[in-house]
Amino acid sequence: MNQRTVSTLTSVHIMQFKEIAGDKYVLADEAALNAHGHDETENLLFLPEVVIRPRTPEEISLIFRICNENNIPVTPRGAGTGLSGGALPQFGGVLISLDRMNSIIEIDERNLQITTEPGVITEVLQNAVKEKGLFYPPDPSSRGSCFIGGNIAENSGGPKAVKYGVVKDYVLNLEVVLPTGEIIWTGANVLKNSTGYNLTQLMVGSEGTLGIVTKIVLKLLPHPKHELLMLVPFNSLEKAGEAVSAIFRAGYTPSALELVEIDALKIVSAYLNDHTIPIDDTTEAHLIIEVDGNHIDTLMAEMEAIASLLTNFDCGEIYFADDEQQKASLWKLRRRVAEVVKLQGYTIEEDTVVPRAALPALIRGVKKLGKEHNFHPVCYGHAGDGNLHIRIKKAGSVYSLDNPAIVPALKAIFELVHSLGGTISGEHGIGLLQKDFLDIVFTSTHLNLMRGIKKVFDPNNILNKGKIFD
Amino acid sequence: MNQRTVSTLTSVHIMQFKEIAGDKYVLADEAALNAHGHDETENLLFLPEVVIRPRTPEEISLIFRICNENNIPVTPRGAGTGLSGGALPQFGGVLISLDRMNSIIEIDERNLQITTEPGVITEVLQNAVKEKGLFYPPDPSSRGSCFIGGNIAENSGGPKAVKYGVVKDYVLNLEVVLPTGEIIWTGANVLKNSTGYNLTQLMVGSEGTLGIVTKIVLKLLPHPKHELLMLVPFNSLEKAGEAVSAIFRAGYTPSALELVEIDALKIVSAYLNDHTIPIDDTTEAHLIIEVDGNHIDTLMAEMEAIASLLTNFDCGEIYFADDEQQKASLWKLRRRVAEVVKLQGYTIEEDTVVPRAALPALIRGVKKLGKEHNFHPVCYGHAGDGNLHIRIKKAGSVYSLDNPAIVPALKAIFELVHSLGGTISGEHGIGLLQKDFLDIVFTSTHLNLMRGIKKVFDPNNILNKGKIFD
Repeated sequence: MNQRTVSTLTSVHIMQFKEIAGDKYVLADEAALNAHGHDETENLLFLPEVVIRPRTPEEISLIFRICNENNIPVTPRGAGTGLSGGALPQFGGVLISLDRMNSIIEIDERNLQITTEPGVITEVLQNAVKEKGLFYPPDPSSRGSCFIGGNIAENSGGPKAVKYGVVKDYVLNLEVVLPTGEIIWTGANVLKNSTGYNLTQLMVGSEGTLGIVTKIVLKLLPHPKHELLMLVPFNSLEKAGEAVSAIFRAGYTPSALELVEIDALKIVSAYLNDHTIPIDDTTEAHLIIEVDGNHIDTLMAEMEAIASLLTNFDCGEIYFADDEQQKASLWKLRRRVAEVVKLQGYTIEEDTVVPRAALPALIRGVKKLGKEHNFHPVCYGHAGDGNLHIRIKKAGSVYSLDNPAIVPALKAIFELVHSLGGTISGEHGIGLLQKDFLDIVFTSTHLNLMRGIKKVFDPNNILNKGKIFD
Repeated sequence: MNQRTVSTLTSVHIMQFKEIAGDKYVLADEAALNAHGHDETENLLFLPEVVIRPRTPEEISLIFRICNENNIPVTPRGAGTGLSGGALPQFGGVLISLDRMNSIIEIDERNLQITTEPGVITEVLQNAVKEKGLFYPPDPSSRGSCFIGGNIAENSGGPKAVKYGVVKDYVLNLEVVLPTGEIIWTGANVLKNSTGYNLTQLMVGSEGTLGIVTKIVLKLLPHPKHELLMLVPFNSLEKAGEAVSAIFRAGYTPSALELVEIDALKIVSAYLNDHTIPIDDTTEAHLIIEVDGNHIDTLMAEMEAIASLLTNFDCGEIYFADDEQQKASLWKLRRRVAEVVKLQGYTIEEDTVVPRAALPALIRGVKKLGKEHNFHPVCYGHAGDGNLHIRIKKAGSVYSLDNPAIVPALKAIFELVHSLGGTISGEHGIGLLQKDFLDIVFTSTHLNLMRGIKKVFDPNNILNKGKIFD
């Protein structure tokens, strides 16, 4: 799909943008437009009319004032690693790339806080604080390339969320440029706040529809000294799901608890030619379980206790990752699953989330729906917090926003998720891709509240128009 | 102050309310009105015209529809333990008491969640989950009498917040009756959610201005098996503040880290005739430090390491609470400080919060302001998260909403807090009391965003009118 939309943008506006941001940071050549017209979501392409790479909130404010006066659509973009099309300029207009706003402003060791710009790569931020013995836990699979600002927009999670929470649990304060051009701080750099409505949490996960985040204050933790990792094969996918719930019920909180279905593992192992994980004919799924903390003896005892508990769920032989290399190898296999299975034709990824005890019912239900709707699913994800990614391969079905062949299958999956007490996105956002399914989980009253809030922040609907509920 | 305001409410409306909620749950006698006209905030009294004690969300919905059509003010009320006047019916009208909606609906042990009505006493809820080995950490000093619904409204904290976070970190999903009468669920019963704007977090801390919460789904944790407690005297209040920051910087995260200034301790010890804590002439403040976890040996080692670290900050002899009785006695002294010092004339309580490393500067600054503005402050609170309660005694100053004698002093304190990167309420809310100071921390743009959101939820401004920014 290569869609070109023309907005009210003119060459006069482009000249004004060049005055604001500097000639070389305002791009309208074909290559730049193409490079900013897609993200990691399926095969969508929407071209902006101009790409601007501002350096300061003040520049963004001036750009917004022009766009707001002239009804020019504005789409903010981080690293373009999104999985729901949130950064795609569906209506053309201006694309604002945050890639030049990439400085870490301060690591405050006395208060365990970091202040950063949005264009810093998540892993760069994590390493910078780790050097000082500090820890920023949220780590999406794309952490090596995604921006922290995009993580705020999508309320990202990752494997550590099961113990440490998601992005929203770390955001203390945000500097935001509103679509009308004003600049605000949403809160204060404090750990507790009962001063007015929580605009900070309203911004987190709002997918760039309410404002552009230009500074971020995050809470940090002391970095745990040790991590232990084990891999547990199960003969039954459902038993693996049941084991997840049992681990928490027994009082353990692993720092990661991931599930990978055997089909996904086979594909990724073959593709990477990495056979760290033995595969046999009876295994249906693996759990990857990590515990972390400061006392190695305590962690060893905890691992053994969890291992012992798991024998009640027909698990196979447990593999303990002994050194850093083995751990890295296991994590690499896990982290690259999505990318690799996509290459094998599992192009449609859903980001379902349910209460964790409902995982077996979700997995069973999805398999059944696959037979009814003639698709093949693979499941993997953050089992510990009930966040299961389901990738679908359907013969003859190429994804598009309005592909009638796939819609009934997706609808059935989301209705199942909703019936289990869950919802349709745990960490990827709604963006363009899921918005037609929002009425499965939200009433019209609920949708109207969100639309009303959007209008308060963005009265002319110029910012990331067409996303979430629009 | 005894203020009586008459709204558009008539006897016809009262008859309608009786049909909805039942005769005996609609009260208009003097005693009932008086009982619902005040809370724990200073000496304010605002009488409602009628008190309704509904049992279901549907009853509240019907009441709202009548009030919304007829512009009748509605004020929601939990247990009336608030410290910012949030439950006071400033404009008369209908007071909705949530005290009959007091059932725990389900403790879901498989998913570590509880679903409850808002009128359950926080401590009752905590004990109910503890019986099943589970843990709901937020525990305001008033936990023995306050309602969980009020805790949601104020985003309450308490001593455990330093390790476990505040109420907002536990709320997964809320059933809310909107002022227009519609009933929504704000989210889903899941640990991760990137599905639309976070209305759950918008409700938490909104002080009953956006809707009435009628069901609450909270995340629970496994209950830690052990707690160790120590009391540390300091010869300098500032050194105590510095020690707080150093503990975290060294990689420790206590489950409570409280500060009590010596003046406060003297008053509460004398009043309760409890001399558990030795008081000598050189001590300026105590820290109460708790660590918790599942491995007693690890905790003992952690306590010793912290104790050793504290000797760098001129602390006195450390007292370790050996048994449950000693622990309970220490906590009782701490929990009753606010109530007791209030009786001694420290009637004005501020709920300041700053980045924790700014505590010494805050304490020093407040003492200086006391001399300039002729008030005497006592400081105590949740030092670990920078949340310092400051109670003020000022000769000849009786608190009222527009007492000109006290306003400059309070303004100076809040300006100091803001200059240190903090804000004016950490866990008590703005309510009626602090709203005139909001422009110290928020720009008019920010205030207008909040007013805009309010209007989306409550177009006729019937719900808890006059609170926060109104």
